[in-house]
Parts: sequence; structure tokens; C-alpha cells
Amino acid sequence: MNAEILSIGDELLIGQTINTNASWIGMECSLRGIRVVKVTTIQDDKLAILNAVDEAMSLADVVFVTGGLGPTKDDITKHTLCEYFDTKLEIHPPTLRQIEDFFTSRNRPMLETNIRQAELPIDCTILENKSGTAAGMWFEKKGKVLISMPGVPYEMKGIMTEHVFPRLKEQFELKALYHYTIQTQGIGESFLADRIQDWENRVRELGFGLAYLPSPGMVKLRITSYEGESRKKEIQDLFEELRIRFPQYIFGDQDDNLPTVVGRLLRSVHKSVATVESCTGGALAHSIVTIPGSSDYFMGSFLTYSNQLKMQLAEVKEDDLINYGAVSSQVVEQMAVNGRKKLGVDYCIATSGIAGPDGGSEKKPVGTIWIAIASDNQVVSKLFQFGDNRERNIQMTVLSALNLLRCTILNISSEKK
Amino acid sequence: MNAEILSIGDELLIGQTINTNASWIGMECSLRGIRVVKVTTIQDDKLAILNAVDEAMSLADVVFVTGGLGPTKDDITKHTLCEYFDTKLEIHPPTLRQIEDFFTSRNRPMLETNIRQAELPIDCTILENKSGTAAGMWFEKKGKVLISMPGVPYEMKGIMTEHVFPRLKEQFELKALYHYTIQTQGIGESFLADRIQDWENRVRELGFGLAYLPSPGMVKLRITSYEGESRKKEIQDLFEELRIRFPQYIFGDQDDNLPTVVGRLLRSVHKSVATVESCTGGALAHSIVTIPGSSDYFMGSFLTYSNQLKMQLAEVKEDDLINYGAVSSQVVEQMAVNGRKKLGVDYCIATSGIAGPDGGSEKKPVGTIWIAIASDNQVVSKLFQFGDNRERNIQMTVLSALNLLRCTILNISSEKK
Repeated sequence: MNAEILSIGDELLIGQTINTNASWIGMECSLRGIRVVKVTTIQDDKLAILNAVDEAMSLADVVFVTGGLGPTKDDITKHTLCEYFDTKLEIHPPTLRQIEDFFTSRNRPMLETNIRQAELPIDCTILENKSGTAAGMWFEKKGKVLISMPGVPYEMKGIMTEHVFPRLKEQFELKALYHYTIQTQGIGESFLADRIQDWENRVRELGFGLAYLPSPGMVKLRITSYEGESRKKEIQDLFEELRIRFPQYIFGDQDDNLPTVVGRLLRSVHKSVATVESCTGGALAHSIVTIPGSSDYFMGSFLTYSNQLKMQLAEVKEDDLINYGAVSSQVVEQMAVNGRKKLGVDYCIATSGIAGPDGGSEKKPVGTIWIAIASDNQVVSKLFQFGDNRERNIQMTVLSALNLLRCTILNISSEKK
Repeated sequence: MNAEILSIGDELLIGQTINTNASWIGMECSLRGIRVVKVTTIQDDKLAILNAVDEAMSLADVVFVTGGLGPTKDDITKHTLCEYFDTKLEIHPPTLRQIEDFFTSRNRPMLETNIRQAELPIDCTILENKSGTAAGMWFEKKGKVLISMPGVPYEMKGIMTEHVFPRLKEQFELKALYHYTIQTQGIGESFLADRIQDWENRVRELGFGLAYLPSPGMVKLRITSYEGESRKKEIQDLFEELRIRFPQYIFGDQDDNLPTVVGRLLRSVHKSVATVESCTGGALAHSIVTIPGSSDYFMGSFLTYSNQLKMQLAEVKEDDLINYGAVSSQVVEQMAVNGRKKLGVDYCIATSGIAGPDGGSEKKPVGTIWIAIASDNQVVSKLFQFGDNRERNIQMTVLSALNLLRCTILNISSEKK
């Protein structure tokens, strides 16, 4: 089954808005076995829309149209689609009631243009938009389908998830693909591929698909079954093997992220955490507090950016700062151990490194980072060597620190990479 | 002058990569008076490329093609373009030398596929790629131009900036547009538009273009002169008027951001800063240290997420925490004043608020945030009411805090919004 995405909007063409709708639809389609073969972005212009719709309907089985339905400009897209599908607009009472409710509940006046949003083509199926006033429209012609949706991402996503994908699955008898993803941190894509070669061969011999999905500092591994959920157990067993072999890298499943996983873990063992940060300058603490309710386990931090504050707040010995430098295991371990005591927590993470672009030396180039974790009976520290991009180095340090805390809580020894 | 962008790559269609190239080209074109009328994304497939190129060349005056030139898949795009423009590939000696140098300088072995990247069409102008091994290609046919470039964003941007735009400007005698942008924080787009209505009318009467470019917490204002730099002085005068009227909102010019502006200001007055953060949890400090060299003026922070640490580190009085709550002017001012003393700095910013989604009450709903700034002779605090999105509330607090510090240093009274 082939699909085309048609994005309408001048703001996309002049680069004011990035077309994230198209990539979201592309990703969701590929997860369901629908092949997006083309994405076309055009102006809010009748002729451009007519041409693009006509071409898309000849190329693809299903056409997803986003944008061009705002209250100020919906006339063009709706009227153009009416012309193409040879139908006309009429007030759609359920949509009108929904728009009225929308404004009443928000205590906002309803304008004439909002009422016009309830004028919808009579020869199409109306798809309810729970988050906004522009409804989705499902047209059919010669066995092909065109769906028109608003361009606001969360409105479009709601309509796709609730209405469009279930209807497409039924009408086109789509194969039910089954996917499962695990998340890794601390090993690059090619190193990971090298170490799981035997496993990957078996995954493929069993007829599954395998995808490596890398992002800075992390790699997701996704197995796809073309026979649906019936092979779920086999996939779980394959991933379980990896979890046993690489517990230091595999930190979660599906959409997990490290702050969520670490938060869940701290909650389950009833422990608290604090940070003493130098090079990350608060980025580590901030990543922890992105999680709602993190105040249950996160107490606070010392950000000791200056050496003066490293001594004053974290009681780092001046001699050690002079002899070993701020970026050293000696200093970062003192930061963690003393921070743990003074901040009154179970675990304390400390970071000290050279984020760049300045401050590097031959012995400690930009990207040299020490991370330490103090707990009640030990302190562990670990050296990392990242690259020369400041913001990237900070982000890599945050991810590595969270994963090191996870390994420490779970008593997993983190090997050298 | 009309343009079309043609993006080639399966990774774009399945949503693994977001098409930021198209938005960058769209933005840069619109700044130069080139109108992008269509963006088309297609597969790495000969027939798809041929059809799309043919259609684009009939629609637009210039076609920008990105992607499909990697060492493993360049055959399709290059051969297809040769077929379309009726030419053939031959080794291009300067490009071959450049590829050889590229690998020699990086101490990496050169593969057969890399040598093939120096095979380029004979009937086109080769555009040097300083950052990679895939050269740009400039084709002409019937007065129209097609430029093929690699999909790696910084390689494409280098070729566009160094070669493509200067050549287009010359060949098509593009009008030299002149743009100037100022940056505002702390006032929404519609409120700003309302307050500068008289000014906006004058801008338009003078024949300039005006654009509002909003992003969360900020609005950029851009004036465009269609007669080039000759009217630069008039534009500067117009913006100077606004700067005098709204010094509390206008924080910078062109590509300035708040951490850069605040850092520049602290450097120029030889003052230091620290933070005492509750709801922002390190995000404010992190935004300050995104700037290289920020260790010159940023000393460190207390992140007092728990009430216990608010008392212990920032010496907030227990009675005030009980009587007024952690989110109050009384508490946030103590955090700023005591933090300033204990961290030994000139300015100390404190934040305390309810980021959400939990913790709100009728009197203090989610989004209620207090910010205080202590300096040597005063402490000012200000109440903000943001929305119900946790991450957005944290970001809005960071921007507002930095702008409040700017106003404090410059002695600008920040009015109530």
C-alpha cells in the first residue's frame, strides 16, 4: 500500500515552520507497513492544491493532506476539495455543536469564521477533532482514499490515531506488524552491531526485521514481526538474551528515556539523589526534574562551576585541585562524597570536565569528562572522552551520568568501552 | 523568481530524518527574494527522480536538489541527472585531489567508492564541497538552473552560501534585499502588535516589510528593505525608537540570544552571577553555561529543590515557608539575598514556582512562578503566571529570569505585563 503526504502552507515553504507532520506520518506509516513514496509541500493556492491532489490520487492508494484548514483560510482547501470530489459544503450539526462547546468551555466568544468551520462537504466521512475546531475529512474515489486534516500537530495526530489508522487497517486489510524496541546508552551503533552480530544473524534467520535507530549518545534497537503479535514471545526472548549480555547498556523498553527509568528505579528502592555539577552546569539536575513528581527523590544540587565553590561547598581539598586539576578522579570523587553528606541524600552524582571549546590541553583535550557516584558504601568514578562540541559534550555527560547511576543502583559493573 | 526544492532520500519518507534542509533553504531564499513554491521529497529511485526533475524544471526557474549523493548510492542520482541533461560522467581531477586530501588529512583509507565520487558530469559546473567528498553540481537547460547537492546539512549549507546564492544573484540579477531583526522577550505577539500599531503603520508607509517571528517566550521583529542596504539608516532609526520605548522587552539584535546578551553585559560591567533555583532545577544555570567562556562570570548555584535544602543552603526561614509557602515573594527573595552572600557574587537570581502538572491550588495554580534578583543594594521580585505545560513553564522562567537580570543590570524598570 502506497501513500503520499500533501502538506499545505506558505509557512512551510518559507521555512518558518519545519514540516514535522510529514516525518511523524512517515514514521507511523512505516510502523504499520504503509509505504510513503512522496511528500509534497505546496502553497495555500487553489490551482496548486488541485494539481497536487490530482497527481497524488493517481500515484498513491491513500493521500494524507495536512494544513490549510484554519478559520481564516479554510475556504481554499475545503472548496477545492469539494470541486475535486464533486460535492458541496453544508453545516454539519455534530461539528457545529462541538465548536460551540469548545468556545463555551473556554469562555471565549465564537466568531462567524468559527461557525464556517462547521460547513463541511456532504459526500465525505467527518472525522471528529477532539482538540480543535477543524474536523478531519475522509474522501473516497475509485477505491482510493484522501484524508484532509488540520496542520496543528497534536490535532492531526489525534485524528490519525483515533480515526484514520483504524479505518485504513480495516478497509485495506493491512498486515498487523508488531514492533518492540529496546533502548541502549553508552555504546556506538557500529560497536553495538559488531558485538551482537551472532544475535542479529539469528534475528534475521527467524524472519524478523531489525533496525538500529541512533541518536546522540543512544541507539534504539527495533525488531519487527511481519506476522503480528503472534510472535511477541519470541521477540521478548531475543531481547531478554541481550539484556542479560549487556545490562550496562540496555536501560529501557519502547519509549523509555533515562530520566524516567532512573526516577522509577529510585522510587522503587526508596532512595534520594542529588548532584554536584561542574561542566554540566545544571543540565544533569534539569534532566532529572523534567519528570513530573521528581521532587519525591531529587533533593537539590551544588553547581560548583568555580574552583572557589568546589572548595567552599563540596569541600574539595585545595592541594588536590592544584596537583590533579579540577578534571580528575580525585576531585570528582570528593565532590560526590562530600556532596552526598552535605545534601543529605543516598546517591550523589558529580561531574567535572572540559566541555570546550576552550580549556583543553594535550593531556586533557576538550571532551575529557570525569563522572563520580557516591553511595553509602562506595564511590565510583569513570573517565569519558567525548568530542569537541560543547553542547553535545554536556548532553553526553548527562546521559552517561544517569546510566552510571542506574548501573550503580542495580549493582551492574560498567565495563570500559 | 520561483524555486522548487527536491529532497531525495528514503530516510526522509519513513520519518527517520526530519527535512530541515528544505526549511533552511526556504528561509534563506525568502530572505533573498526567491519564492519557493514547492518542496517535493522522493525515494532514491531512478524513475521517481526523473519524473520529479522534469516536473520541477517545468514549474520553477531554479531547482535545488539535496541528497542521494552518498558514496554508496550516488550512482542513481548522478546517472539520472546525466540522462536528464544528456551528458556523461568523467573523473574531475580537482575533486579527486580534494577527496584524496580529505582522507590523507584524516588518516583514513580511501575506498573505491570514494574515488567514484570524483566522477562527475562533464556538462555542468562543479561546486566545491569544502566539508565533504560529494561535490555540488550546477546544471543549466533552457535558461533554467538545477543544483544538485549532498544531503548532509552543513555540507549543503556550505555549498549554498559559498557558491549557489552568489551565482544566482549575479545570473538572475536578484534584487538585494536588506533585513534587520530585533529580539524581544516578555510580551506576546498580539500584545506587541497592539502596542506598536502606530509605529508599524509608519514602517509600512515607508515601503518596508515587517514580519513578526514568534517562538516560545520571544518574538523577533524583522524589517525588510526592498531597496537594499541604501535604507539601512532609516531602519536603524525606526528600531532605535522602539528600543527607547520598550527597553524592558528588546534585548538584542539579529541572532542574539539572552544567555549571550546577559554574558556580554556581565563581562562589560565586570560582575559575577550565581543562581538559587527551585522549580527550574538547574535549567537557568545550564542556559548560562551554554555560552563558551561563561566561567568568567558564572560562579555556581544552589539547587534547592526540597524545602529542607531551601532552609539549610539558602537559609530560608522555616516560619516563612510555613506561612507564605515555597512559592512566594518572601521565600524567593530570601533565596536570592542569602544565595548572593553565600555564593559570593554580585548578582544572584532565584526561582520558585509550580511547574506542574501537579502541585497547583486555586490560589496558586500550575504556572505560578516567582523570580527574584539580589544585587548589592536591593532585591527585586516579580510574579509570573505561565501555562500548564511543565517543560514550557521551566523554559519561560529561564527566559524571564535572564531578561529580568538584564533589566536590573541596566537599571530598566520592568513594568507589569
